[in-house]
Amino acid sequence: MAEKRKVVLAYSGGLDTSVILTWLQEKYDAEVITFTADIGQGEEVEPARAKAQQMGVKSIHIEDLREEFARDYVFPMFRANAIYEGEYLLGTSIARPLIAKRLVEIAKEHGAEYISHGATGKGNDQVRFELGAFALAPNLKTIAPWREWDLTSRETLMAYAKERNIPIDFAKSGKKSPYSMDANLLHISYEGGGLEDPYWEPEEDIWRWTVSPEKAPDAPQYVELSYQAGDIVAIDGVTMTPAEVMIKLNELGGKHGIGRLDLVENRYVGMKSRGCYETPAGTIMLRAHRAIESITLDREVAHLKDELMPRYASLVYNGYWWSPERKMLQVMIDESQAPVNGVVRVKLYKGNVIVAGRKSDNSLFDANIATFEDDRGAYNQKDAEGFIRLNGLRLRIAASKGRKMD
Amino acid sequence: MAEKRKVVLAYSGGLDTSVILTWLQEKYDAEVITFTADIGQGEEVEPARAKAQQMGVKSIHIEDLREEFARDYVFPMFRANAIYEGEYLLGTSIARPLIAKRLVEIAKEHGAEYISHGATGKGNDQVRFELGAFALAPNLKTIAPWREWDLTSRETLMAYAKERNIPIDFAKSGKKSPYSMDANLLHISYEGGGLEDPYWEPEEDIWRWTVSPEKAPDAPQYVELSYQAGDIVAIDGVTMTPAEVMIKLNELGGKHGIGRLDLVENRYVGMKSRGCYETPAGTIMLRAHRAIESITLDREVAHLKDELMPRYASLVYNGYWWSPERKMLQVMIDESQAPVNGVVRVKLYKGNVIVAGRKSDNSLFDANIATFEDDRGAYNQKDAEGFIRLNGLRLRIAASKGRKMD
Amino acid sequence: MAEKRKVVLAYSGGLDTSVILTWLQEKYDAEVITFTADIGQGEEVEPARAKAQQMGVKSIHIEDLREEFARDYVFPMFRANAIYEGEYLLGTSIARPLIAKRLVEIAKEHGAEYISHGATGKGNDQVRFELGAFALAPNLKTIAPWREWDLTSRETLMAYAKERNIPIDFAKSGKKSPYSMDANLLHISYEGGGLEDPYWEPEEDIWRWTVSPEKAPDAPQYVELSYQAGDIVAIDGVTMTPAEVMIKLNELGGKHGIGRLDLVENRYVGMKSRGCYETPAGTIMLRAHRAIESITLDREVAHLKDELMPRYASLVYNGYWWSPERKMLQVMIDESQAPVNGVVRVKLYKGNVIVAGRKSDNSLFDANIATFEDDRGAYNQKDAEGFIRLNGLRLRIAASKGRKMD
Amino acid sequence: MAEKRKVVLAYSGGLDTSVILTWLQEKYDAEVITFTADIGQGEEVEPARAKAQQMGVKSIHIEDLREEFARDYVFPMFRANAIYEGEYLLGTSIARPLIAKRLVEIAKEHGAEYISHGATGKGNDQVRFELGAFALAPNLKTIAPWREWDLTSRETLMAYAKERNIPIDFAKSGKKSPYSMDANLLHISYEGGGLEDPYWEPEEDIWRWTVSPEKAPDAPQYVELSYQAGDIVAIDGVTMTPAEVMIKLNELGGKHGIGRLDLVENRYVGMKSRGCYETPAGTIMLRAHRAIESITLDREVAHLKDELMPRYASLVYNGYWWSPERKMLQVMIDESQAPVNGVVRVKLYKGNVIVAGRKSDNSLFDANIATFEDDRGAYNQKDAEGFIRLNGLRLRIAASKGRKMD
Repeated sequence: MAEKRKVVLAYSGGLDTSVILTWLQEKYDAEVITFTADIGQGEEVEPARAKAQQMGVKSIHIEDLREEFARDYVFPMFRANAIYEGEYLLGTSIARPLIAKRLVEIAKEHGAEYISHGATGKGNDQVRFELGAFALAPNLKTIAPWREWDLTSRETLMAYAKERNIPIDFAKSGKKSPYSMDANLLHISYEGGGLEDPYWEPEEDIWRWTVSPEKAPDAPQYVELSYQAGDIVAIDGVTMTPAEVMIKLNELGGKHGIGRLDLVENRYVGMKSRGCYETPAGTIMLRAHRAIESITLDREVAHLKDELMPRYASLVYNGYWWSPERKMLQVMIDESQAPVNGVVRVKLYKGNVIVAGRKSDNSLFDANIATFEDDRGAYNQKDAEGFIRLNGLRLRIAASKGRKMD
Repeated sequence: MAEKRKVVLAYSGGLDTSVILTWLQEKYDAEVITFTADIGQGEEVEPARAKAQQMGVKSIHIEDLREEFARDYVFPMFRANAIYEGEYLLGTSIARPLIAKRLVEIAKEHGAEYISHGATGKGNDQVRFELGAFALAPNLKTIAPWREWDLTSRETLMAYAKERNIPIDFAKSGKKSPYSMDANLLHISYEGGGLEDPYWEPEEDIWRWTVSPEKAPDAPQYVELSYQAGDIVAIDGVTMTPAEVMIKLNELGGKHGIGRLDLVENRYVGMKSRGCYETPAGTIMLRAHRAIESITLDREVAHLKDELMPRYASLVYNGYWWSPERKMLQVMIDESQAPVNGVVRVKLYKGNVIVAGRKSDNSLFDANIATFEDDRGAYNQKDAEGFIRLNGLRLRIAASKGRKMD
Repeated sequence: MAEKRKVVLAYSGGLDTSVILTWLQEKYDAEVITFTADIGQGEEVEPARAKAQQMGVKSIHIEDLREEFARDYVFPMFRANAIYEGEYLLGTSIARPLIAKRLVEIAKEHGAEYISHGATGKGNDQVRFELGAFALAPNLKTIAPWREWDLTSRETLMAYAKERNIPIDFAKSGKKSPYSMDANLLHISYEGGGLEDPYWEPEEDIWRWTVSPEKAPDAPQYVELSYQAGDIVAIDGVTMTPAEVMIKLNELGGKHGIGRLDLVENRYVGMKSRGCYETPAGTIMLRAHRAIESITLDREVAHLKDELMPRYASLVYNGYWWSPERKMLQVMIDESQAPVNGVVRVKLYKGNVIVAGRKSDNSLFDANIATFEDDRGAYNQKDAEGFIRLNGLRLRIAASKGRKMD
Repeated sequence: MAEKRKVVLAYSGGLDTSVILTWLQEKYDAEVITFTADIGQGEEVEPARAKAQQMGVKSIHIEDLREEFARDYVFPMFRANAIYEGEYLLGTSIARPLIAKRLVEIAKEHGAEYISHGATGKGNDQVRFELGAFALAPNLKTIAPWREWDLTSRETLMAYAKERNIPIDFAKSGKKSPYSMDANLLHISYEGGGLEDPYWEPEEDIWRWTVSPEKAPDAPQYVELSYQAGDIVAIDGVTMTPAEVMIKLNELGGKHGIGRLDLVENRYVGMKSRGCYETPAGTIMLRAHRAIESITLDREVAHLKDELMPRYASLVYNGYWWSPERKMLQVMIDESQAPVNGVVRVKLYKGNVIVAGRKSDNSLFDANIATFEDDRGAYNQKDAEGFIRLNGLRLRIAASKGRKMD
């Protein structure tokens, strides 16, 4: 008797992936292995176990990956000051490579030939999952139900689920948000619904992690962030793991109305898409990291990082975390971070992250040279003449030969 | 009898340049021609006339350049979304090319062989003035007193001024700020004094143009900005010139505590320097411009702009406005802006600039394609499979030949 | 009675596209409109008329596009010094946008909804044709027989042709080259056959346009190329059109064994591919253009061009000629070429293109400054000290604070 | 009694640096320590000892640095495929960092506060020496006689030498070349003299290391180069050290007329300069390295390297070898080279370096996928449709909204 084909499914426990689970069993006669991870989405993952069992799943993987996620994905990315299209902090993008990696590892463990996920055919996530799988296990195949089936509306999904007694929390799904959401330690995102009109401002109750700046405390709060090699290792003097850092900063940022973002972005698949994001910790981390770099990084190193940043961000956004070019850039970025040590003091107040001070034993800021006061010869102002004259030589020659520069 | 050497001086009417004026007359036996411009610094320029006359100046140029400054310098730069080192909006940098250009033109008009300025030998401004002069008038010479004389402290300057009856507003200079300041339509900057310790947070009363977020109104304000070819042409439906736009947005931003910045930057001459900046209009303009671009620019055009932006910003910062490479980049950027038309709605609240909507007749956002609902065939989800498979082909081949990507 | 669907086919007159013609008539019941262009491939295009007529085609377009191809595609690309992956001169890539444009225009003229081409599903050409069509006529559909049918070998094609009396020059196809070839004014390419082993050196008789360096004349030949705005406008003093320039340089280069290339390149669809190319004119043009730029372009303009060149080359290679980002780069490149005027003298000898001299009224080379002899004060050597000291200041500060740079 | 100031001089034994030696003793009352290195310039270094002794030098350092030069400077640079301004292989530039490093080390050893060199104030070499010294020993001072003294012509130098009995090989200097030359394992360069007219073609007898292509052997020669991690480790199967590789390839290249170059380059100090170069080994190494990379590097890694190459080359050219940004790029480049292993076969013939084959156990070339023959399903041609459709989606949307792309 032939063995069933094994499929490792990224299973959240929600409606969509529960339907997928059953659909895989039915359509592909598959033995489904579920994988559910806590990456800080803020919902219990254990309930997924009972549901999977109820649907006959024998191999159930439920894991707390928050620490690994923060340490090996979010933190390295923030060393690059990565922002996609000037605004987006890549909250969804950065979670996918870890999920892909675990799907692949579990598939290898079980000798499964397939993985499956609940991402649609319009979005970036399918690309991120599948490119990751290609890079880590080239022969693994992916089943992407949303690209195959005709259950294209919420109603058909619900009907399918009811018909087959799929265990759905109908009470919960009754009051379902009109938005498509995604959450992890770094952010929560909202798409769809009224957001599909980019001129429409979302109502206040769309936001879940942050209070509005208006409702944030009237008193600012100062926080001290300690850096080692580009990473935050302590908050207000208390040593923390990467995940603890993010949990704490999400709490602080959320309380002070920090990290809301409303934007239109360009998806890798070729369309523009409107999204709203809450990234409290990330918003603080980006600004603070730039502040500590501002005193510890060499100018040209900083500029090189800035020029390559958009490319790095696109790689992460487009799903190329597991690629030789991302790795190559990461090696370079990490090399630059050795001296990025010290303390940044930030003031949090009603949506604002204000840098209030930065210091470091590795500081390259030299008050003796920069001073407006007498510097006792630390800097010879006459040097500037030659500096300007030779930097301008090509311009002078060109102008004297009649080139117009205005 | 030999003609005196003519020197065109960038004259503010303040202590430093008044001393320079006299020093040039004395040391170089020069006929000094003064040039004083209103570029929105918020101080009267006419008083400079009486002072210059009192010091014997015969050719006095006092000009209102606010419109030219906004239209030909600030606005083109904002089409590039230029930020230096991730934070600085280039408020001082962008004013220098215009001053350099007028100095050169006035020198040509008078047949002067020299220009002079009050910038120190440690800063970027000397570079910006002098590179501009090289590019526009290669044979013009510059006298930079700060690189020559030994009046290196405020005390010696004051003594020099007193001794020669240089007309100084001693009342005003008595209560002089401990900071070195520079202002124009785009910003006001503060350097020196206590700021030379980057861990020290400036006291509240350093700031002159903005209220603190804490003291800003409790009620947010919505503003509608209309764009044509990348430039704001109307606010709340009222057509305005570039300078009017900036004056209005400075007023609105200042009222809502918007645009304060405290940073450590890398100067072109090789040192790190701490500066505080208020850029109310610029802060609003940058965010709003990105918002209108987000719906009107092609993805790859936007990404190309983003990748070249740091280089453009460095060119402006380093004083290469009048250079063939800046012009070359500008031509490219301007080319991209033809479709950047439409309206952005922003919400101003206690330091925050929140994008609340964007719309455009040139929008490339297509709700029919992006929708989470049934798109009636506008997008074929099956296309994604081939897209992913071929984008991943090189990764799959590499992985199947044993390359490690984790 | 329903109208037949109209398909505009890029028709070469050869076996493959003749089979496609019939297959479209048969499979799609299509009214096929043929388009055959002379872009310098070196074969008669008129014979395609009789064949098309014989297969019942009523609308036959045969055009000499050599001048347009050279002027609007090849020449603009050479202004960029475009080379893909350090070696490839983009000979095939640059011909596709023109073909795509004419297919689209002819389709519009006839009210056709389809175009069709003979490019395979593995190559770059399908991408170039179809992206071009998307950009120029978004609703036009493409039929790509090689991605649809099962005539996947030469034998099945021949059988299909015989069975249907498709007019093939069997004599000619009998002695068919084992290589897949493509030719136009810029190059001829060879792929497939024994070339699929990258360690195998092609036999001498693969090459068609150039003699081997060994067989080239023993006497070198000097040629003088005159440039205007970056384009060659005369050879040895004789004014020529762009196509005439290319024809002449192909003749000269071919005679002297110039322009052979054997390489492995990365295709856009994700695989590596071995190709051999002959690009006699292009090889001369690239080197000579760099030579005229070397004396007429500003340093920073030249460097900016060099840094963006790989991206420009990738855009052309990947099929994005008709894209806003290519256009944007082109505008910038063209802006830079205004002063690229003058004369370059090259020596051609057995595979070598040796620059033997360059001169220009727009030269920025200044012997008075560069000279090793006494320059009479044109350059003040003391300026170098300040130049070096300030360029090195950040390094000195870093080193003095203990940073290691070795 | 005060100790004399110690100066470590980069001493070649030639006229210029012999005069400098004496001048330092005389003008600065210095104890001069000489440093003479064999970096492959092809002249004996030992004669410098007797001359230095004759001039009273007590501490004489004569070193054979060829191996270190090839291994730690030339080879790492060739991993980057570095070319400055599209042509120049950086032969002079790459030798300076090593000289700077040894000058600094010797100065530390002797407790010297000064170094000195014979580079002029117009060139790049002064910058390279002095930036290196700043980076490695921030407090070390440099004496650059050419920027100080008035011995500005050959005649005054000779007179100075004669007057002081400086040991010059007058026989040799009598027939001195009219060109300024510099040589090391990587190249020999010529500047000045008749070359100051860029339209003048140098006479044949300027060249010293290579025969002319015309006089090169009529029979081609095949050579097999073995690579490990991006470096050549064997020639024709014989294992060699880096310096041995270069010596062998210089010999082979020189014999076959390979590596002559005649160009106008842009110096860092702001002027254009004409130079002729012979780089036999380097010319072969560059082409062969690209060939081995073509089959072993991932496409995106190769493209990233190509886009950063001009910047890397400028860093080396401008004297920033000892800088954190060069190091950062090097780390990234070296990371990419792990799989760059295998064999390249090149054919050398009358100035041509022709790649005749490349193979590697790490090859990513996959004939099964690339083949024009039946690939038995290795590649699904239908994938291309989705690939093209989604890559073109943004273009289609834009075109359908009326954007013009031609």
